[in-house]
Amino acid sequence: MLKQALDFARGNQARFLNEYKALLRIPSISTLPERREDVRRAAEWLAEELRRLDVEQVDVVATSGHPIVYGEWLHAPGKPTLLVYGHYDVQPADPLNEWRSDPFEPTERDGNLYARGASDMKGALVAFLKAMESLRASGGLPVNLRFLLEGEEEIGSPSLPGFFSQYADRLKADAAINCDGEILRPDLPSITYALRGLAYFEVEVHGPKQDLHSGIFGGAVHNPAQVLCELIAGMHDADNRVTLPGFYDTVRALDADEREALARTPVTDDDWKSLAGVKALWGEKGYSSTERTGARPTLEVNGIVGGFTGEGAKTVLPARALAKISTRLVADQDPAAIREQLCAYMRAHAPETVTWDVRELSHGDGAIMDRNSSAMRAAVRALHETFGAEPIFTRDGGSVPVVAMMQKQLHVDSVMMGFRLPDDNIHAPNEKQHLPTWYKGIEAFIRYLMEYSS
Amino acid sequence: MLKQALDFARGNQARFLNEYKALLRIPSISTLPERREDVRRAAEWLAEELRRLDVEQVDVVATSGHPIVYGEWLHAPGKPTLLVYGHYDVQPADPLNEWRSDPFEPTERDGNLYARGASDMKGALVAFLKAMESLRASGGLPVNLRFLLEGEEEIGSPSLPGFFSQYADRLKADAAINCDGEILRPDLPSITYALRGLAYFEVEVHGPKQDLHSGIFGGAVHNPAQVLCELIAGMHDADNRVTLPGFYDTVRALDADEREALARTPVTDDDWKSLAGVKALWGEKGYSSTERTGARPTLEVNGIVGGFTGEGAKTVLPARALAKISTRLVADQDPAAIREQLCAYMRAHAPETVTWDVRELSHGDGAIMDRNSSAMRAAVRALHETFGAEPIFTRDGGSVPVVAMMQKQLHVDSVMMGFRLPDDNIHAPNEKQHLPTWYKGIEAFIRYLMEYSS
Repeated sequence: MLKQALDFARGNQARFLNEYKALLRIPSISTLPERREDVRRAAEWLAEELRRLDVEQVDVVATSGHPIVYGEWLHAPGKPTLLVYGHYDVQPADPLNEWRSDPFEPTERDGNLYARGASDMKGALVAFLKAMESLRASGGLPVNLRFLLEGEEEIGSPSLPGFFSQYADRLKADAAINCDGEILRPDLPSITYALRGLAYFEVEVHGPKQDLHSGIFGGAVHNPAQVLCELIAGMHDADNRVTLPGFYDTVRALDADEREALARTPVTDDDWKSLAGVKALWGEKGYSSTERTGARPTLEVNGIVGGFTGEGAKTVLPARALAKISTRLVADQDPAAIREQLCAYMRAHAPETVTWDVRELSHGDGAIMDRNSSAMRAAVRALHETFGAEPIFTRDGGSVPVVAMMQKQLHVDSVMMGFRLPDDNIHAPNEKQHLPTWYKGIEAFIRYLMEYSS
Repeated sequence: MLKQALDFARGNQARFLNEYKALLRIPSISTLPERREDVRRAAEWLAEELRRLDVEQVDVVATSGHPIVYGEWLHAPGKPTLLVYGHYDVQPADPLNEWRSDPFEPTERDGNLYARGASDMKGALVAFLKAMESLRASGGLPVNLRFLLEGEEEIGSPSLPGFFSQYADRLKADAAINCDGEILRPDLPSITYALRGLAYFEVEVHGPKQDLHSGIFGGAVHNPAQVLCELIAGMHDADNRVTLPGFYDTVRALDADEREALARTPVTDDDWKSLAGVKALWGEKGYSSTERTGARPTLEVNGIVGGFTGEGAKTVLPARALAKISTRLVADQDPAAIREQLCAYMRAHAPETVTWDVRELSHGDGAIMDRNSSAMRAAVRALHETFGAEPIFTRDGGSVPVVAMMQKQLHVDSVMMGFRLPDDNIHAPNEKQHLPTWYKGIEAFIRYLMEYSS
């Protein structure tokens, strides 16, 4: 059955690619209200695909936000049940002028497919469905599957907790496979076993009642853009540590064993520099780049805006300035505590001359996954066979809150298996998926389903 | 002749107002390339108005930017010649959503006329023309006039120096009247005798080659928005003094007499707070608000932008961040030196992890005017008669570079006479002109032309 399925996958690459492109053409940007209907179209596209594969109970479940696509295939008695997680929403595409081709018209260049969502994560989602299709066409499926495909991952998965409570019975599984993962290099598979949490805020500073003439009032009225800059500047100390009060109190320290294991990650500082396109690295004193991004919490300015930002010179003292500030969290930091710390920082440091707001936009817990479960061991074997190399375990600096939610609410541990590469430009212009790696991904999922059933 | 002219002006208020509104409807925003044709339309409107008043040699002179309107009326032999300066360009109107009525559809509310440019400075320009018209209709003009009306004041008057060199002969005058001034209150006339200079820059910080995923790279790559905030935060010290190296070296100190005179300005800290709409004032230690805005140099963040600034949460580490930073200068600071100081600051403080640019967008010198010239004494008398109160002398925090240019290139000193009020919201949403003060302005200009001739 394995050989037949692999042959089917290889023989249908061109068609599979076309179907992948069709999904990429739908601009399912979950954070933009004007894309609501597009997000829904992507959900319907996936539901139709599941029905075509004889998945049962397929439902596009309405939520207060974007819908969740559910489905099940439970015809492998005595075999384990796998909960398949993916998300079909994508990040915004701006700045649009930095894309070399239309973000929603997938374009092949040099073995890569360029489009928003190509790597994060419509690619892995379609790859998994194509693995299932290949097995179905070759004698059946060796495990039971339940599908949970959401459209709100990029905005913090706000509808999942409620969905998990309501649908707990239909989400029972022995393990989850989360296709939102990456591997280190096309010739070096890897499995993420730790994720950072996220707490994302808007911080707004209000000064004068309206924009003022900077000549008439400049020097006598505190400038809110300057105040915001001063507040942000104070959020890191000279060792590049975050200064929110209590920020590191609950951070789980790395022990010597884990530091040694992480030091073996074959990503050098030169690799980091080249991936980011910077001349020098930066970060918390006393830690390597791998530790800084994977095992240490951070605070980032995602965006800042205030005053006149058009072409030319407008001499204005702005009425307000706003920053989007997010923190990446590690075990055992609590996103709710971070909000309190940020407000405490603002209370302590914002001057009397201004007023301010802190608004939380999204949050999610970090997670650590069991490296020795049978589901994890099956993934190690499937990747080893597909890539001809032993996969290594890594910590990921990104946030996939659903992993912690499934642990806490469903008591199901996840295996992260995806075929994104570190230079895929996710959340950035010119996002791409390396197509040879994508084809290998389909084969790896086929092997995984076989391995997990045995 | 005086009484006749004043009667004519009073009898024609409704028509004068309509003509004022017609000029306000032209969105002559000099800094926006897409408004180029509108700026030109405003120039043509003024040229037509001058021709209607029998002004001779009227010309709309092309420059590399926006045109300069020239004209002359030299039929008062033996009388002094006045160079009439005004600008017909306006600031951008954004943020548009904060206007209570269309910025380019002048709207009367509570005795005020609301429109972009109503106060800065189409109001004073039209008022002067209507004073001339009233005198012409009442027996003639008692002085010689040359007109110089530019369309680039709001972008730093880049074409004036070349124009002054080329047209020096046609700009010969005994004094200039600059209508871009203000008075303190409707019942308290004042004359500005000092202006601040301006040097306006864009400072851009470049980090990674493109926006990065803040989870994957956050903590290992220096965030350019954070770097820009740190740099801006460092531009003021704990005493709110500007830290650019050498910034205060050439600042002319206030002597005790002038500090005492400025202390008599009847504008209290409560007035400043109420005008700005802030709960507390701010500024350089050791100086009053009047001194901080009129006699001390300052540095202002006019705008800042970087990363994701749309609705919602995008987890991005931005590739770059940009600030529009301007300094207001006092005698004897040199704008060219400020540019060097800003670059020196950046060289000393920008970290190795980023690159940066400093671009100058505009600059102009500050100026101090003679309070005892015959042209100035005529203005004092005209204002006293019109308002029934002795005008007081003030320093203005804003920049009108043409005053210094005329001093240096044409050897002509200016009298600033305008009828703007401090709460007119110039450069801000809901700019307005107080109409009773505008009608008084026409009368004051009539009286001024009579006084200056005698």
